[in-house]
Order: sequence, then C-alpha cells, then structure tokens
Amino acid sequence: MSIISLHPIGTIHSPYRSIEDMPIQPIGDGTTQGTVVLEAAYADGLEDIEGFSHLILIYQFHRVRGFDLKVKPFLDDRAHGLFATRAPRRPNPIGLSVVPLLSREGNKLFVGNIDVLDGTPLLDIKPFVPDFDSPMVTSVGWLAGKMRQAKQMRSDGRFAASD
Amino acid sequence: MSIISLHPIGTIHSPYRSIEDMPIQPIGDGTTQGTVVLEAAYADGLEDIEGFSHLILIYQFHRVRGFDLKVKPFLDDRAHGLFATRAPRRPNPIGLSVVPLLSREGNKLFVGNIDVLDGTPLLDIKPFVPDFDSPMVTSVGWLAGKMRQAKQMRSDGRFAASD
Repeated sequence: MSIISLHPIGTIHSPYRSIEDMPIQPIGDGTTQGTVVLEAAYADGLEDIEGFSHLILIYQFHRVRGFDLKVKPFLDDRAHGLFATRAPRRPNPIGLSVVPLLSREGNKLFVGNIDVLDGTPLLDIKPFVPDFDSPMVTSVGWLAGKMRQAKQMRSDGRFAASD
Repeated sequence: MSIISLHPIGTIHSPYRSIEDMPIQPIGDGTTQGTVVLEAAYADGLEDIEGFSHLILIYQFHRVRGFDLKVKPFLDDRAHGLFATRAPRRPNPIGLSVVPLLSREGNKLFVGNIDVLDGTPLLDIKPFVPDFDSPMVTSVGWLAGKMRQAKQMRSDGRFAASD
C-alpha cells in the first residue's frame, strides 16, 4: 500500500524533556499545563475553538523508533498485543491525547493535562464532541482495575528510541 | 519541519461507497457495521483486544484533497475555523472514529457504528480507555444543541475531492 506523507502543523510544548520523566497518560498528572503552538499560517483555522472545553490532539511520537507486536505495558506485568495497548512504539507512531482547553492567544492554545514530550510535532487538532467521542464503555480488558495505579505512575525508559 | 511518512496497516470496509451517502459521524447511523482488516503481518498485535468494548480507529481520509481554514460544517450555516470542526479536508487528512468492537476473527475486527468510506486506509488502532479518553466535557461550542440534527444527517458533496 502507498505511503502517506504528513507534515507537522505546529509544536506541543510541555515541561517533559525526557521520556523517563513523563506521566504515562494525561491521568498521570492532571495539572500539568502545555502549550500548543500552531504554525502561523494555520491560525485562522482556530476560530471558534474556544467554545470547546476539550480538544483531541493528534501528534507524532517523535522520539520512538520501531515496534514490537507484543508489549508489556506500564500497567501490567503480562504482555499484550500492541493494539490492545497505548504504547507509543507502533507501526505508525501516532499519539492521541484528550486535553482541556484553558485559553487561546492567537495561534497558541494553553491546555491542561498534558502528557507529551516537549517539542512534540502536532499533526491535527479536533474538537472533542461527547456524542461522537464518549461511548458507553462496558469493558476495558486487561486495564480493568488498574486505573488508580496509573495516576501515580511515571514512564521509564522502555519505550525510548533504541538508536 | 520534516515530513512524516506513514503507511496503511490495513483497510476499513464499510457499506459506504461514496462520500455523498455517508453518515457525517458514527452517530448518523448507530447500527452500520464495518470490518477492519489488519495486514496479516500485524495480526499478533491484536491479542487481548477483545477485552475492550470500544476502539479508536485512526485512518486516512483518502478521498479528500486540500483544505480551507474556514469551513461551513454540515451542522451549521455559519463558517468556523477548520480546527473547531471535524471536516475531513484538513492539512493532515487524518480521521478518528470511536467504534464498538463486536467480535474478532483472526486479523479481522467486526465493529459497529462505522462512518468511513469502504476501502479507507487504516493507520492505527487503540483501545478506548474512559479514564484517558472521556473527559468531563462542559462545552461543545457551536455544536451545542445540534446533536439531534446530526443523527438524521447524511453527508453531501462538499468535502469531496476537487480533482
């Protein structure tokens, strides 16, 4: 199948400079603020975004390389299929975070609950719409009962680039 | 900034053969089933995915070209900034749908609530985890009060490729 070429439309800034110090998901530290800086050329595309309390950020996991089809996630000591996890090392290293939008200044969005590395290349911003994005979830597989644990965990080096 | 090269890891099959006949979001037709066929090489990555009631599909809007920074969405007669909408014509034409996982057979996932064109290139599958992905949304901007309308609407030609 053919290659799909994407290009960053901006950069996500956060306090996290190394993979080791990051929360494993936004839940890891609900108070950490980040700044999404959109390329100036796209700024007009942000009109009316302030009306939404939450956004979906889509970005590149730019510091990872390669992937394994079975991974042992932070929250379990058993391996699972890669697509049953949120591990960043994936065939297409695309990340997704749902964040609260705190405020906007021109092409800058100030967001909460950030869980990405400083300098992360931004690929897309979508408004979070509960009717589309919040289903009535009835099961979370191997993650059941592990959420309390997630709130206290930080990343470690396991998903770092190997080169 | 540098180009990011992605490659399809599978294909999403649906009953929708043309952009004109599609629901505008999964909500448009909650009962439509689709099939996600992962390339056989990645099948081991699906282990334990059956435990999750919902998945996040990330895919390419492969039939759109170009974008405008201001768009008039299906659900409004006023234009809004592109990033305050879910319009498929975006600088990076990446789509995201949250779907219920009905069953799995090997490298095939049968899902509900599908809202993509038949033959859509799949980029990633992530498990939907409410603690990460279901925030306490307090506002949905210009979409407020328009959700009932969305359930009955179908797409039209406005987001079709212009070439």
